Order: sequence, then structure tokens, then C-alpha cells
Amino acid sequence: MTYPDGLSAFPITPTNEDGSIDLGALRELVLPLVEARVDSIGLLGSTGTYMYLSREERRRATEAAVAISGGVPIIAGIGALRTDDSVRLAQDARAAGASAGLLAPVSYTPLTDEEVFEHFSTVARESGLPICIYDNPGTTHFTFSPELLGRLSRIEGIVAVKSPAPGAAEIRAHHFALKTVVRNGCSLGYSGDWDSAEGLIAGASSWYSVIGGLFPITCLAIVRAAQRNDAGEARRLNAHLEPIWSLFKEFSSLRVVYTIAELNRAIHAKPPRPILPLSPPARAKVETALAGLPADLLR
Amino acid sequence: MTYPDGLSAFPITPTNEDGSIDLGALRELVLPLVEARVDSIGLLGSTGTYMYLSREERRRATEAAVAISGGVPIIAGIGALRTDDSVRLAQDARAAGASAGLLAPVSYTPLTDEEVFEHFSTVARESGLPICIYDNPGTTHFTFSPELLGRLSRIEGIVAVKSPAPGAAEIRAHHFALKTVVRNGCSLGYSGDWDSAEGLIAGASSWYSVIGGLFPITCLAIVRAAQRNDAGEARRLNAHLEPIWSLFKEFSSLRVVYTIAELNRAIHAKPPRPILPLSPPARAKVETALAGLPADLLR
Repeated sequence: MTYPDGLSAFPITPTNEDGSIDLGALRELVLPLVEARVDSIGLLGSTGTYMYLSREERRRATEAAVAISGGVPIIAGIGALRTDDSVRLAQDARAAGASAGLLAPVSYTPLTDEEVFEHFSTVARESGLPICIYDNPGTTHFTFSPELLGRLSRIEGIVAVKSPAPGAAEIRAHHFALKTVVRNGCSLGYSGDWDSAEGLIAGASSWYSVIGGLFPITCLAIVRAAQRNDAGEARRLNAHLEPIWSLFKEFSSLRVVYTIAELNRAIHAKPPRPILPLSPPARAKVETALAGLPADLLR
Repeated sequence: MTYPDGLSAFPITPTNEDGSIDLGALRELVLPLVEARVDSIGLLGSTGTYMYLSREERRRATEAAVAISGGVPIIAGIGALRTDDSVRLAQDARAAGASAGLLAPVSYTPLTDEEVFEHFSTVARESGLPICIYDNPGTTHFTFSPELLGRLSRIEGIVAVKSPAPGAAEIRAHHFALKTVVRNGCSLGYSGDWDSAEGLIAGASSWYSVIGGLFPITCLAIVRAAQRNDAGEARRLNAHLEPIWSLFKEFSSLRVVYTIAELNRAIHAKPPRPILPLSPPARAKVETALAGLPADLLR
């Protein structure tokens, strides 16, 4: 398969209090992504609280999303603490029709490079699912060296790297440094919404976007502008979203998008405990920010 | 109940490759702790790979340990990413006969103080199990402020704090600072084997010990020396174990105790993947260190 470069839009996974998926609400979030023809749907990412969902619920979410995807590729989170659990999640995702798996080196006991190498190669080999390496030290507490990413990109079935955007000033150097170590053809992309437009402008293939899960049309416009080398337009649109980036930095993108999903799309889901919804003053800040944005960006 | 201060000995949890407990091997590890009359058995700690075991397997391990405990209190790890899962694990541990639960603020999404406060108070309230706060930023990536520990220690049912030893030079100041913020009567103890003897000498009530899971008699001798204010003897014995502390620092206590359990006790368990057994050169270092230690310490 060709890896789906471009905009990967990451919706939240609405759940009931017992941790079961609210499939109706999930469909309400996924359908606009399909209609906008995003390049892929990043299901069960960190924003999709994958680590808080059981194997069975992850399977239900993936099947429900694939069923309405209309051919838009699904990249499904398959991370777990145990290697055998990640293998099973990858097999489930593949069986459910996901196009790729997003695999983070989730840790409790800090992991060595060799352990992460074996973990990734086992999951790729035993699942046959194309794998995107999910580099996110803020949640996994594992830091990939460029050397390890280079080795991993040469494993059969490992096709992409999703890196945390290192900041607008450093992203060009970061991208080119990574490009020199990974296998030719390995897709390189960024998460961390506020700096990802700069990543695309620097030459990255993908933006793994949290806000893309709610405003796919606006995010696609940024991606398409970057793809046609219209850096000015990509930056202009990205700058419009600054009030949202500022909230993400202050309160975390996860908690903020739950609130936006409620205010803007009437999705009344709460994040899984212990994660709490935003406090009333923080929520008021989100309301103010949304009210100040042009309506045609909020889609 | 009176919280079991003193030596809490943490065995590994031997498992088969599929993640099921090897109950025979677990009994072989627990029985010597019972015979040595350690003050408590720290079952399913980080050394006991609790985060890699299912609810059902944790229940089996706790029941098996309680059955042979001969009245030695069991402190069982009840940490999980989800609050409802930790509540169920605490209820299971209580039903199985554990005396207390060891609760860490395990995280994937970084947690706020308020989220951790709610998590702990919910688990304490809904389980009725006495709770020891397990502060271990190296695995949980949550840092407790003294203020938060003070608030938590005033919740009904929260009875103890297990802190990571901050280093021999700082441990006295750390212990007294903590003592001023927590509820009077809250048990304070340390993990991080190499500096824990200093913690006891400084006045801490407990040593949560990894090597105590294999050498309970030696570790009890250190604890009893500290309890009778014989700091010289406690330090002398602790210094004997320096070759082991050095291996713990170089290769992690978890990986090293698996190797010691194999070499010294013929327990052929492997840590759960992705965690790998020590490499042959590291293993050789462990063999050399054990060979150099007086035999009467290795028990």
C-alpha cells in the first residue's frame, strides 16, 4: 500500500463512563472527516485515549470507523505496555480494515533501545500491518535516537515516523537530519499542532493533527497550501488558529478538544478518569477563543 | 489496622510467556520471605511488573501469596491507568486478603495535581483498602509536591507514603520536610535500595526493598539495626551490598533481580516483553558480583 501522507485527522474517542465506546458520537466525529476527504483518519491516537481503552473497545471503534470511512484510510493506535498485546491490537486493526498502525513505545519500566527495537520488529513481523513509529516522549517517556529510527525504518513493514514538532525554529534542521538517517521512502511527519505547518513547509509529508479531528476543512487548506508550496497561505491560516494553539499549550490539546467537541459539535463525552474535563474558568477561555474565531475556520 | 512498618520485601512475579503467573515459582519466592518474618511482602510492585499483568493474574498472585503468608501482611500493587480499574484492583486485593494497596499515579496523558487527588480519593473511598501512596516519578512521570502529599495523607484510608530515596546526602532533610506536611501518624518510607538504609537512620519507618525480595534475612538485619539506632551496623551491612547497588544503578534493579533469582534461586522467569533479560556480558557481571559476596549475605 501507499502510506497516506498529508493530513491525518485525530478525533477523540467518545466513551461512556464505564469505558465503552459511544459509537453514535464516534460516527458523528468521523463522518465530517470522511466528507472533508482528509488524507487519513488517526483513530485511537493519544487524543483518542487509546491507552485507556480495552482491546475489545478498540476493535469496536476501529470497525465502526472503517464501516463509514468511504475509503479514507484509517491509521489506528496499537500501542500497549506488553509486546504481545500490541501484536494482538495490530492484528485486530488489520482484520478490522485499518490501513496502518500507529505504534508508540509505551513504557512503565524505562526501556532500552534494544527493547524498543525488538518490540517494533515483533509487532511489524507478527501483524503484517504497516507501522508508523509514534515518537512522543511526553507520553511514552522514551526518547528515540536518530540511529534507532534509522534502524527501525529498515524493518519490513515500518513505513512512517510521526515526530513531535521540535519548534518552528528547529523544525527544518530536524526534518533534514531525520531524512538522512531513515530509509529512503519512509514517510516523515509531525504532531504538535502549532508547529506542524512549519514542518510541512520544511518538507515533511504529513501533519498528524489533533484539531484536524474537529476542523478538517481548515487543516486540509493548510496542508494543501503547503503541498503546492504556498508557504504564505499555510502560515496565514495557521496564524488564524493561534488562539487555539495558545489554549493547547496552556491546558493540553486533549482536554481542550474535548471542550471544543462539546461546545462546537454537541459531543458531550468526558475524558476517561483520572483525566478531568477542563475547569469552568478554563472552559470559559475556550468559549471566548472560539467566539473570536471566524466561523468559516471552525469546520 | 496498624500499617506494617519496617522491611517490605518486593519479589518479582514469575510469569509464563503468555503473561500468566507461574504460581509455583511465586510460592518459592514468597515462602522464604514468610519464614524470615519480613514486616510485609510488597507483592506486585514495579519489581513485580504489576503494570504488565491483567486483573485476573494479579488476583491469582495475591490469593496465592496470602494463602502462604502465615500472617505476614501483603501490600499489593493496585496501580492502573484508569481510576475505575484501580478501584477494582483495590477491591480485588482487599477481597483476597491483602492488608494494604500500593497506589502509583500511573500516567500516559500527563496528570494534574487535581486529577491525582481525585484518583487517590476515589480508590481509597470505593475500596476501603488502606492505601500507601507510591511516589515513583521514574515510572509514573508524575511528581508529587509536598503540598499534594499533605492533602492526600488527610484522606481517610491513605496511611503511608513510599518515596524514592533522594540520595544519602539529602535524605534526612527530605524526610523531615515530608514529616512536616503529612498527617501525624502517616507512615513514611523509602524505595531505591542503595540509599534506603540512610532513610531508616534518618527516621523513616519503612524500607520498600527490591533486594529484600531475595535476601530478606540480610535486609531485615539492616532494618533491625536501624530500628535499635545502631546506625554503624546498618551502614556496615549496607556497604557490603555495594556490588549489588552498583549493578542496580547500571542495569536497573528489575533486570538485575531477575538474573539473581535465576542464578541464586533457580527461578527461570523472564521479565515481560518488551523488557529483555540482561545481555550475556551484564549477566556475567552479576555472576561475578554474587561470587564476591559472603554467602551469609545472600539470603
